[in-house]
Amino acid sequence: MTLHVHKYGGTSVGTADKIQNVAQKLIDEKSATGNDLVVVVSAMSGETNRMTELAKKMQVTPSAKQMDVLLSTGEQVTISLLCMALEELDQRAVSYTGSQVKIITDDAHTKARIEDIHTDRIQADLAQGKIVVVAGFQGITAEGAITTLGRGGSDTTAVALAAALKADECRIYTDVDGVYTTDPRVEPKARRLDKITFEEMLEMASLGSKILQIRAVEFAGKYNVPLRVLSTFVEGDGTLITYEDEDMEKALISGIAFNRDEAKVTLAGVPDMPGVASAILKPISNANIEIDMIVQNIAEDKTTDFTFTVHRNDYKNTVQILQSICTELGAEKVIGDDKIVKVSIVGVGMRSHAGIASQMFSALADEGINIQMISTSEIKISVVVDEKYLELAVRTLHESFGLSQE
Amino acid sequence: MTLHVHKYGGTSVGTADKIQNVAQKLIDEKSATGNDLVVVVSAMSGETNRMTELAKKMQVTPSAKQMDVLLSTGEQVTISLLCMALEELDQRAVSYTGSQVKIITDDAHTKARIEDIHTDRIQADLAQGKIVVVAGFQGITAEGAITTLGRGGSDTTAVALAAALKADECRIYTDVDGVYTTDPRVEPKARRLDKITFEEMLEMASLGSKILQIRAVEFAGKYNVPLRVLSTFVEGDGTLITYEDEDMEKALISGIAFNRDEAKVTLAGVPDMPGVASAILKPISNANIEIDMIVQNIAEDKTTDFTFTVHRNDYKNTVQILQSICTELGAEKVIGDDKIVKVSIVGVGMRSHAGIASQMFSALADEGINIQMISTSEIKISVVVDEKYLELAVRTLHESFGLSQE
Repeated sequence: MTLHVHKYGGTSVGTADKIQNVAQKLIDEKSATGNDLVVVVSAMSGETNRMTELAKKMQVTPSAKQMDVLLSTGEQVTISLLCMALEELDQRAVSYTGSQVKIITDDAHTKARIEDIHTDRIQADLAQGKIVVVAGFQGITAEGAITTLGRGGSDTTAVALAAALKADECRIYTDVDGVYTTDPRVEPKARRLDKITFEEMLEMASLGSKILQIRAVEFAGKYNVPLRVLSTFVEGDGTLITYEDEDMEKALISGIAFNRDEAKVTLAGVPDMPGVASAILKPISNANIEIDMIVQNIAEDKTTDFTFTVHRNDYKNTVQILQSICTELGAEKVIGDDKIVKVSIVGVGMRSHAGIASQMFSALADEGINIQMISTSEIKISVVVDEKYLELAVRTLHESFGLSQE
Repeated sequence: MTLHVHKYGGTSVGTADKIQNVAQKLIDEKSATGNDLVVVVSAMSGETNRMTELAKKMQVTPSAKQMDVLLSTGEQVTISLLCMALEELDQRAVSYTGSQVKIITDDAHTKARIEDIHTDRIQADLAQGKIVVVAGFQGITAEGAITTLGRGGSDTTAVALAAALKADECRIYTDVDGVYTTDPRVEPKARRLDKITFEEMLEMASLGSKILQIRAVEFAGKYNVPLRVLSTFVEGDGTLITYEDEDMEKALISGIAFNRDEAKVTLAGVPDMPGVASAILKPISNANIEIDMIVQNIAEDKTTDFTFTVHRNDYKNTVQILQSICTELGAEKVIGDDKIVKVSIVGVGMRSHAGIASQMFSALADEGINIQMISTSEIKISVVVDEKYLELAVRTLHESFGLSQE
C-alpha cells in the first residue's frame, strides 16, 4: 500500500470553504490513487497572530511555556474542522493532537525538536481506511508539557511523520505551485523546476526563497523522504525535492536566490593577529545578533579589514557595538552599508565544473555591476552588490546560466 | 495548609483586562490568606459560540467527538493567558489541560462524566507555592480521546477537583454576588442568603435560578465539598452552600423559585385503566421531549384528566403528538396552555412544619391568584398559575414567608 503524507498550511485552511476544499481534494486523491493518507494541518491563517496579540496584553515577554499551550490550540481547531468536513463527505477520519500521537520533543519551548514519534495508533487507523488528520507544529515532552516547533514547524511535523511512517512521499501544499529558478516577481522568465536536490533546496531556502522550512528539508534529506512542494489551489505536479540521481536535469545551476534583508559592516584597519576575529564577533553574538557572510582578506601592512553581514534590523546595533570595541582592538574605523543585497547561484552541477565563478563575475561585470563581497560553498556562490542592482543582477544571471523559459 | 479551588466562568475571563483582574484577585487572596489556590477557568465568553458556528459550516450535525476536540481549545487558551498574567505579577503558576491533569471521563462525548482525577502533580505544584490553573469543562478518556462535560461543565470540574484534592472550599465566581431568596429583578426586596443547603440549592437551580450547574451541586453534596457562590466583580462573602447545620438560619423557606419556560398540556377524559399513563408519555419521550410536572387526579365517571408540563419550545409538538393518540386511547380531547408559569417555595425548614402549603395557597388566594396545578416534594411546593400573575405571586410569597429585607 502506498502512503502519502500531505501538509496544508494556514492559507490553505484559512476559511471554512478552504477547509472543505482540502477535504474534497483528499477524497478525490484517495479515490483516484487508493493511497493511504495522513494529513498535517496548520492553524487557520490569522489565528496565530490573534493569539500572539492576546499574549502580549498579558505579559511583556510572554512565557515560552505558556505560548506553546496557547498557540497549539490553533492546529487543534483545524484538525477537528477538517475531520468534520471529511465525515460530512462520508469519509471516515480521525484527528490527533501532537500530544495524542505522541510526537515527543525536547523541552525547548517555542522551538522544540522532535525526538520520537509513536506510529502504532496511526497505522491501525490507516489499516481501517481512515484518513488520519494530525495537528502540525506541536508536540509534547516526555513529562507531558505541550511544546511547539516554531513558525513553519508544520512542515517539520509532516516530514518527521513521513519518515516515521516510512511514507512514499511527503507533499507540502502551499500557495505557490513549486520551486522556481528564481522569484518570478523579479524575473518573469523564471521557470518551475520539476526536481531539485535536498542540498540545493537548503541553499535556496536559506537564501530567501521562503517556501519550506529549512529544518523540514534537512529532516527529509536525512531520512531520505521524497518531498514535493505543490499548490493547494492550482493543479500541477509541483517540484520534487529528492537525492541527486541519473535522471536529474543536467543543469549546472538550478536557481538564483537573493536576500534583501542584509546589511554589511566592516571593521577596517584591524591589527592582523590571532584572536582578533573572535574578539570582534563575541560581543555581536552576546547581543544575539546572527551573522551571515564573513569575509576577511589577507593582511597588508600588518592590518586587515574584517567584514560581515547581519540582518538589516540589527544594523544600527551592530555598528554601535563595533564602535565601542574599535579603539580597544586598535582598529582604524567602522564602515557600514545597509543598502546592499546578496545574490547567489545555486546548483549541485557546479561541483564538477570549473569556470562557473568566472562566468558569474563576468556576466555581472558586463552589466557594470560592482561586486562588494564574495563567499562560496560547494554548491553555491554568493555576491553582495548595491541593492539598486538586485533585479538586473538576478535577470542577468538567470539568462547567463540558461534558466529562462523557452 | 488551607486549600481553596476557585472557578471563574466565561464572562469573568471574557477579555484581556478581565483575565488580568482575575490574576490580581488571586494574588491578593493568596497574600491575604496564605491559602493554596487551584483555579478552574472557562473559555472566554463568545469563543464557544464562535467555534460552534464554524463547526456547523463543516457538518450538518457536527460529530460529538470532533466537537470535543474543537471546544476544548477554548479553556486551553484561557489557562495559558491567566498563567501569563500571574507570571507578569511575579506569581509562579502552572497550567493544565484536562488531559494533562488527567481528568479521566467516560466516552459520552459532549456530556462526559468524570470518573477519576489524578492529583499528584497538582499537589507537587502547590507544595512549591505555585498557583495551579486548570482548564474546566474538559477531560480525557482512558483511551486518550478528548471529552467535554457539556455546557457549564467548568463548575463540575471545580467541584470534582475540590473533592479529589480534599479542598477546604470550592468558590464559584460568577456575575452575581450570591444566591438570592428570589430573582431581584422580580422582587426588589430579594435578599442574598448567607447559607443554603445542597438540597435547597438543587431545587432552586432546577427551578430556574441558573447560577450553578445542577451536576456540580450534586457532586458537591455527594462529596461534602463546601461550595461558595460569589461575584468576580463585587466584593462580598457570597452564599455558602453546605449541609444543614445547627447554625443554619431558622427559616422555614429559603427562597422563591420560578420558571417562565413551561407550558401545560392535558389529555382530558382518559379512560381510568392501568397502562394509560405510560401509553401517553411514551410517544412524548420518544420525541425527546422532557416532562417536568405530572398531575393526575382521582377518576370521576371512570375517566380522568392527565396533565403535564413541558418546555414551551416543545408545546406545539406535544399537542400534536397527543392529538394523534387521543382517539386511539379513547380520550375526549387535548387541552393546552403555554401562557403559564411555575412558582415554587423551597426550604428544608418545611419538612418539620405543617401548614406551609396552606399558608402558600391562602396567600395566593388572598391576591385572587388561581392555582392551576400543584406538585410537592419533601422540601418544595410548586404551583402553576397564569403567567400574568408571576410577579404578584413571587412578591406575595416572598412577603408572606418573611424573606423580604428589613
